[in-house]
Formats: sequence, C-alpha cells, structure tokens
Amino acid sequence: MTKFFSALLLVLMLAFSSYADEPESNDKRAILIVSFGTSMPEARKAIDNLFDAAKNNFPDYEIKLAFTSNIIRRKIAREENLNIQNPVQALAELNDSGFKKVYVIPTHIIPGEEYDEIKNVVEAFRTLSKYGFKEIKLARPFLNNYKDCEAMAEILISRFKDFLEKNSDTAVILMGHGTPEHPANALYALLQLALNNKMPNRIFLGTVESAPSIDDILLGLKNNLDIKKLVLSPFMIVAGDHANNDLAGEDDEESWLNILKKNGYANITTYLHGMGEDEKIADMFIKKLNALINED
Amino acid sequence: MTKFFSALLLVLMLAFSSYADEPESNDKRAILIVSFGTSMPEARKAIDNLFDAAKNNFPDYEIKLAFTSNIIRRKIAREENLNIQNPVQALAELNDSGFKKVYVIPTHIIPGEEYDEIKNVVEAFRTLSKYGFKEIKLARPFLNNYKDCEAMAEILISRFKDFLEKNSDTAVILMGHGTPEHPANALYALLQLALNNKMPNRIFLGTVESAPSIDDILLGLKNNLDIKKLVLSPFMIVAGDHANNDLAGEDDEESWLNILKKNGYANITTYLHGMGEDEKIADMFIKKLNALINED
Amino acid sequence: MTKFFSALLLVLMLAFSSYADEPESNDKRAILIVSFGTSMPEARKAIDNLFDAAKNNFPDYEIKLAFTSNIIRRKIAREENLNIQNPVQALAELNDSGFKKVYVIPTHIIPGEEYDEIKNVVEAFRTLSKYGFKEIKLARPFLNNYKDCEAMAEILISRFKDFLEKNSDTAVILMGHGTPEHPANALYALLQLALNNKMPNRIFLGTVESAPSIDDILLGLKNNLDIKKLVLSPFMIVAGDHANNDLAGEDDEESWLNILKKNGYANITTYLHGMGEDEKIADMFIKKLNALINED
Amino acid sequence: MTKFFSALLLVLMLAFSSYADEPESNDKRAILIVSFGTSMPEARKAIDNLFDAAKNNFPDYEIKLAFTSNIIRRKIAREENLNIQNPVQALAELNDSGFKKVYVIPTHIIPGEEYDEIKNVVEAFRTLSKYGFKEIKLARPFLNNYKDCEAMAEILISRFKDFLEKNSDTAVILMGHGTPEHPANALYALLQLALNNKMPNRIFLGTVESAPSIDDILLGLKNNLDIKKLVLSPFMIVAGDHANNDLAGEDDEESWLNILKKNGYANITTYLHGMGEDEKIADMFIKKLNALINED
Repeated sequence: MTKFFSALLLVLMLAFSSYADEPESNDKRAILIVSFGTSMPEARKAIDNLFDAAKNNFPDYEIKLAFTSNIIRRKIAREENLNIQNPVQALAELNDSGFKKVYVIPTHIIPGEEYDEIKNVVEAFRTLSKYGFKEIKLARPFLNNYKDCEAMAEILISRFKDFLEKNSDTAVILMGHGTPEHPANALYALLQLALNNKMPNRIFLGTVESAPSIDDILLGLKNNLDIKKLVLSPFMIVAGDHANNDLAGEDDEESWLNILKKNGYANITTYLHGMGEDEKIADMFIKKLNALINED
Repeated sequence: MTKFFSALLLVLMLAFSSYADEPESNDKRAILIVSFGTSMPEARKAIDNLFDAAKNNFPDYEIKLAFTSNIIRRKIAREENLNIQNPVQALAELNDSGFKKVYVIPTHIIPGEEYDEIKNVVEAFRTLSKYGFKEIKLARPFLNNYKDCEAMAEILISRFKDFLEKNSDTAVILMGHGTPEHPANALYALLQLALNNKMPNRIFLGTVESAPSIDDILLGLKNNLDIKKLVLSPFMIVAGDHANNDLAGEDDEESWLNILKKNGYANITTYLHGMGEDEKIADMFIKKLNALINED
Repeated sequence: MTKFFSALLLVLMLAFSSYADEPESNDKRAILIVSFGTSMPEARKAIDNLFDAAKNNFPDYEIKLAFTSNIIRRKIAREENLNIQNPVQALAELNDSGFKKVYVIPTHIIPGEEYDEIKNVVEAFRTLSKYGFKEIKLARPFLNNYKDCEAMAEILISRFKDFLEKNSDTAVILMGHGTPEHPANALYALLQLALNNKMPNRIFLGTVESAPSIDDILLGLKNNLDIKKLVLSPFMIVAGDHANNDLAGEDDEESWLNILKKNGYANITTYLHGMGEDEKIADMFIKKLNALINED
Repeated sequence: MTKFFSALLLVLMLAFSSYADEPESNDKRAILIVSFGTSMPEARKAIDNLFDAAKNNFPDYEIKLAFTSNIIRRKIAREENLNIQNPVQALAELNDSGFKKVYVIPTHIIPGEEYDEIKNVVEAFRTLSKYGFKEIKLARPFLNNYKDCEAMAEILISRFKDFLEKNSDTAVILMGHGTPEHPANALYALLQLALNNKMPNRIFLGTVESAPSIDDILLGLKNNLDIKKLVLSPFMIVAGDHANNDLAGEDDEESWLNILKKNGYANITTYLHGMGEDEKIADMFIKKLNALINED
C-alpha cells in the first residue's frame, strides 16, 4: 500500500469519525496540503513525499490532502473509488471535526490562477465564525521572488549535478507548466536569470503554455554550440501527463523530445521524476510550513 | 418511511452520485433549506412539510437540507447513523455536483444570530469563483417587518380560531425562542402589536430567552380578567425540546405550564405542533422562495 | 458662536492642517460622531451636546463629526458655506492626518438602514491597509435589545417626570422616525413594552414611517380613558423638521397635533427638544463610547 | 501654466462645485488616474501627458488625478500649496460629486505592492452602496504577461531606435524600480526575455531594488564585448529622483553611471525622460482604458 493510499485511508477514517463526541480543545491543529492532483497513480509518490514530510515534521498535526482539479478528482472517484475532497470540502470537514487552527499549503510552484483561487477559499473561511477557524493561514508557493528563485536554482543544480558536472557538453531542459495571462508566469523568467547567474547556460527552463517557450530554449541552445547532449525533465511537482506526453512523448510529434530531435539533438536522456520526489524540495516545503506556522 | 427520511436518502444518494460525469448545464438549480434542526425524530415532520412544499412547488430544482446545530447533527449521526450536513458542507456539495444557481432559505422565524451566520456563509460563497455559484441568494426569515407581522398574526388567528372564536374566555399563549442581545428579538414585540391590532388581548406571545417574557404574559393576563382558559403552543417551526419541556413540561417546575398553574389558571390545553406543520406557514415559506427566485 | 460652529471650525482647521509634518505616533486617536444631520441651525445644539460630551470625556482624542444626509450637507454648504463631510470623507481625512485608532459612533437610535450603511463604511476601511487604521471600531446605536430599552425607558420617565408625576391624567406621546422594511424598526415596539412595564399606559411611542403608528397610539389612548392631557415630544436625537412639522405642525392637517385634536384631545402641550440635548442621553452616549474603546 | 496645473485647477474647481444642486444622472462618468506621484515639478509632464491623452480620448468623462505617495503629496502641499488627493479621497469626492461610473487606471508599470493597495481601495468602494458607484473598475498596469512585454519591447526598441540602428556598438541600459518581495518583480525578467527575442543583447533592463540588478547588466555587457557605448534611461513613467540620482547622478558614487564608468565604459549618454512622455506609451495607456471601459 503506497503512502498515498495510507493518507487517503486516514482521510476517510477521519471523515467517518468526525461526529465522535471528542472534547473540543482550542489546540486541535491541522495542515491542509492542496495540490492540483494527478490521475496517474504512480505519479502520486511526489505528493506522498510532501505529505509524509509534513507528517514527520508535524506529528501533532492532522495532515489532510485536497485536490483542486475536478476532472482528476472525478477520474479517481470513478476508477479507484476514492473520494478526494476539493479545498472547500476539506476545510468544511476540518471545521466540523473540531480543528481550530489550520495551515493551508499549496504544492504549486508559482502564485498563479490556481493559487489565487485557493487564496479566495482561505479568505472566505476567514470571514466565517461558527464554520471557520480561530486561525487559518495560507503559505506562499515555492517561487515568489528572487530569493526563492536563487534557492530553487541551487536545488536544481544539485538535482542534476551528475549530468552537469561530469559532462560539460550537457544541458538540462526543464518543462514548467506556465500560464499565459497571469503575471506570476514571469517567475519562470526570473528563475532562468537565477540559474544563469549560478551556472550560465547549462539549465534551460521553458513552459508548456507561455513564455519562456521551447523556441526560447532553442535560441539559447543555438547560442551555446558546445552543448551536444540534453537531459529532459519536468519542472513540476508531479511527473504526470505533461512529463510523459508533452515533454517526453515519443509518439507526439510536437513533444519537446521530438522538437529537439528535429533540431539536431540526437543524444537526449529523460529524467521523468516529479520535483516533489526530491528531498530538497520536501525540505523547502517544510521550511515554508514552519515559517507559516511560526510567523505572527 | 417519513418524508424526512426520504429527503435524507435523496441527500445521501446525491452525495454518492456527485462524481458522475453529467454534462454541466448552466441551469442546474437547487434550493437549500437551512434549519436549526431537531433531535426528536417525531418533530421533524414540521421540517418535512416545508421540504415537501418546496419539492412540490419547484419540481425542477434539487431540494437539499442542512442543519446548523452541531449538537443535533452529532446526535442524529450517533443515534440514527444519518449524516446531515451543515450549510457550508451542503453548499460545497452542491457546487461539486455542478449546481450553478442556489437559493438558500432558512426556516428561522427572526433574522437573529443564527440568520447572521447563514448570511455569512452565503456571502463567503459569493466571493468564490470555481467553488462558488453563478447565482446564490438568501431568503429572508419569516418575520422582518410589520407587514410580515401582520401576515403572521392572521395565520396565528386562523391557526387557533377554534379556540378563539368559540370561547371568549380563552387566550392562546405562544412561546417563541428569543435571543437576549440581538436587535431582531424585538420582532416578537412587534408581532404582539400586530396581534393586538387584529384581535386584542387574546393571543399573548413570550420568549424563552428574552422579552417579552412569561412575566409580560402574566401582566397581560392580569389586565384581562375575563380570560379563564389558556391554550399553550410553541411559536417555533418545530415542536421539540422547548415545546415539550420549557412550555408544557409537567415535571419541570419552571415550565410555563406550571408557572401559569401557580398563577391560578387551572384550565390549560396544550397544542404542541410545530408551526412548520401548518399549511399556511408552508404557503408563506413558498411565497418567500418565489420572491427570492424571481426578484432581480 | 454655538458649540456646533466651534466644532466645525475645528474640523476645517484640521482639514487645512492635515499636511503638516507632524511626527506620526501610533497613538493618535480619534472619535468620529456620525449623525444624519439637520438643516435647522437651532436644532444642532442636540448634536453639539453629544459632541461636547465626547470632547469633555475624551480630551486626548480628536473629535470629528460627519453627516450622512447629502441633502442636508448640500443645504448647509449652500446656505452657510460650511462643508460637513460624509463618513467616507471624514475617515479618509483622519487617515490622511495620521490617526491610527478611530472609534466611530452613530447618533442613531436604532440599527436600521442608515446604521447598516455606516457599518459598510467601517468594514470597507477595515480592509484597507495604507489608507485604513490600526484599529477602527463601530459603536452600537442607542437601542439594540431589551436591556437598552429598559435603560431608555428610565431616561424617558425621568425626562418627562414633571408631566407624569404631577398629573395622573397626562400621557406623553413620542414620535420616532421608523423604517418600514428594516427589522430594527421593531425596537420601537420593544421600547413600548419596556415603558409599559415600568409605568403602564403613560408614555405612548409611535413612528412617522411604520409601526407603531399614530393609530396605535390612538387605540392605546382609547383604552385609557382617564387620560385627558397630552404632551407631544420627538423621540429623535434632533428636534428638526419632523418635530416641528409632522409632530407639532399647526398648519399641517396630518400632523399628530391636529390628528389628536380631531380625536378630542384639547389640552396638548408640545416639548420640542431633541433627545440629544438631554444630559442622560449624553451619558448613555458616553457609556457606549467607553464600552467601545475599552472592549477587546 | 503647465497642463498639470490646469488639471489641478480643474480638480480644485470640481471640489468647490461639488455641492451644486446638479440633477444626478446615471451617466456621470469619471476616469481616475492613480500615480505614485513625483515631487519634481518638471518631471510631471510625463503624468500630464497621460492625463491629456485621457482627456482627449474621453472628452465626456471627468478626468481626475490621485497620488499614492504621502511624502510627495505633503511636499507638494507645503511647497506649492497644491492639495493632491490620495485614491480614497479622490473616490470619495467623485461619489460626493454624483459620479456613477468610475474607471480607475494606475500609471504603474507592474502589478506590485502599490497596485495591490489600489486594488484594495477599489474593492472597498465596491462594497459600499450610498458612498460607492454603480460601476467601478480597475485597469491593469502596463506589464502583466508576455504579450504586454512584447508590446513594451517594441515600444522600447522604437523609442531608442536612433541609438540602436545607427550604432551597432551601442547598448541601452534601462533602470526600473523593482520590488524585492513581490512576485510581480519577475515581470522585469520577462520583459528582458521579450527584448532579447526581438533585438538580442542591445537593451539591458535592471532594477533599483531587486533582480535583475546592475550586476546582471554588467554580466550581460561582459558577454557582449562589441558594445562600447551606452545610453542610460529610466524605465519609469516619470524621470524623477531615481533617474536623476540613482541612475545618472554624477556625484553619487553608487549611481549606475559611476558604476558603469568604473567598469570601463567611457562613452555614456543619458536620456532622462519619463516613459509617460512617450506618445507610444500614452497610446498603450489609452488602449488599456478603452479595454477597461468596454469590457463586460
């Protein structure tokens, strides 16, 4: 049984025990982890990893999980008979189970539209009294400013050090999700700046939906003709559909793999692991949780 | 199987069907009836009656029920293994089931603290986008102004006409709930004014928790020495704990029944039916729903 | 120069001094008194009285005045060349002048529509940071619950004791404003209950716009045939237009004075002073301010 | 008399005419331009230019100006005896003058902290009824997404085309303001990407307060050894304090001018004009206003 399923089992057990006549203390605390979700069961180990890190670091807290994607929630309900709540349902249940202090943390990389909607939900619960909490706070996502980008750049350089240190002819190509209209999309460009400052022209970051694009990556490669070998990897918490199809899909003509091949790169390795599986990312996640819980 | 249980069964079925892949139309509409709740199963027929009235008058709408009292919700869960949602849970589920327009109507008599909290919940959902609705509106409770009091006075005079018309020596004593701090409690005094204007000194209204009190009723009776017989009845939607104990409890020394006996009234009849069982009240409820749904 | 004009002068001086380079302390505190306003200069002494009471009791606070009626504000600007701010303008200026803690107190008698709008304004400023305050709180109006009604009943009995004690054939007729749709209008009926409990059938309260009405007062008088003489007085903070015309207007056929005359009451005295002129009302006002400032 | 002073005169005239008994139409519309402000009178022509563009393009609208910087507002009040309102005061006055539809547009380049606070103000007025508007909307700042960055890149290339086309050894160095904590700061990095895509390595953008920094610019210059001559210009709406001191200050050892000199660049030209003076920027401003007013 994967950790993910253990977590879900716990969630379900909690749901059924929520009417027990427990004495209500002012100290019942919970952490709600909010993810977009993934419908690929094997990809969930990235979310499991963050969930477990929270569990290990905050043993006295209830750790709860919610997904924001209705399509994924319904697919899991249909195919696996598992009911994963959306953030509103999860907070309503935490309230009903007597939790008084709740710390919400997204697994999102940038504060884009998805994050704004989670923020709306937290603000809405803040206006409630009987159905709200004594304290409810929302953590920031992974990337907010240049300091975050510098920390992330270091994690990425460390994550791919085997490729980068041993082979000066190798570049790492990262695929982020991106969002075309939201200002937060610009954080990908800021992260690229931090990457270039720490290790110039070896890690190239693009997005599926906006800028920087695969064209920007190709331009960067053209300016660095020493690079012969590429490593493709998702810059997403979970290695799901985008990683397997849009990035590394062999059958998809428009996958980055095929675009890069068409552009003359024959030596391409894929590293299809969600960032959430990385212990350094889990550490960053816990650091954000600690800051959230302890800040005034 | 009572109507209440049918309603609950439907609620539960809805819960389990909520992930079905129905095409989402912009017209899925629901009515959410919000009651304080009652833990006495036989008293629920008053809520059933309002529920059924909504069902019959709005056949194309989902009709859903929520209770605000956590104590009652937990008692029902424990004793009857029935999970009745609170308003936040109910709205979260309606959203998750694809409803786009939701009309919330309380069964409350006055816009007091309970109503304010329901209003908070509706306002909170109004700030949500993905987890909210295209339209969400909240109906007013039964008594808001003098016009409402006049309509209610007529219903009460009609409700007790057998006692009032046949016996000029009979007064009806009504017990409302009351709330000591909230301005809305004053509506009981305003209703008394409307009652006095339509049929002077025959129906006396008091509250358990505030003014007018049983002392005010006693004063009114002393000023009307022709009155020899009394009819006691709850001025509450449900004839539950307050009606059976605080009003008509024979063993409770401080019940109004015993207080009135001690004050010399030997001929006392009790009429322990929730106002919600009254068809005229159900009509008033439907009128409020119609106004809510059709108003701009 | 009346106190009102002194206050205004101060307001204007404050306006022109607001850009001075004062060092901003965290302790600059202000009280904002919000009144509907009156266009009759001689009626303003009632507001002056409350203003002065605040000034005397809170010597370290800036005391500021705002009117909610645009018609009255414009009339005063036109006729007296005085610019009295509305509540939003007044709060914007307090912020701009560096005040950090602001206590808003209405002169309103009931928490009706006018009060709701002031509450909206205070809530709106609560959401602001740079243009808001470290603390902003809103006091309740004079009448909120039965306890308030009891305190007000005692003030009224004391206010009219010369008429009531010396002449058992005299009743006091009070005219409140009233609001037809808002639940808070019911507080007039609740105050009548408190009056009847303390001194039965000697003070009759009606409203211009809703229930209780002059008809209800006439009904009360008919039930108390000992009453031969009447004293008419406004139950409003200011004795302005309503007091002089709707209540005591000799030329207005529908004034209460003329209605009561037509109903056979020949001996009618008028007492046309705003409640705000009464020291006991000023004390109640200061009590509410103290509670507001000192509550958590 | 500069256009700025004409505008102010109008604002003051409006203030004094606001109590006139004009019939209130539902169509009184205003545009509120919100700028940080500048205390250098000669720099205001950039704001004047945007103000006039609005005036010419929306002749039926009241055009009003507010500054967000209290320090600047107080300096202007002290030194020039001119009272420029903050956004709350300006909106309060528009409401008091009977305007029903108000369109707020910032002159800010990125949606950072300043923009968030303006958004707060607009949201607060949206919750008001009597003191609010029938419609109030807030325009986006100049840079929100990659499309905006592409449009801005084209404007910049055109703005400096004399330097860029004629001299292939010349680079333009732009100084933006920057904000260290806010995600929106990343838009400067995104704009650099757009600049590089349209004209590689000829325009280098940095910020005073965050990344990209002058160090990032120096790194870029080192990678482009053909560049011998530099043009320094502010990437700010107004060429005020930052442009004259932090960018081009000869006496300030840490000015970019001196830093670049120390790094070996002897041929440096300064172009100290606010972006707001540029007709293409004014066109972009009007385009945003049109979109705001006409969008649903």
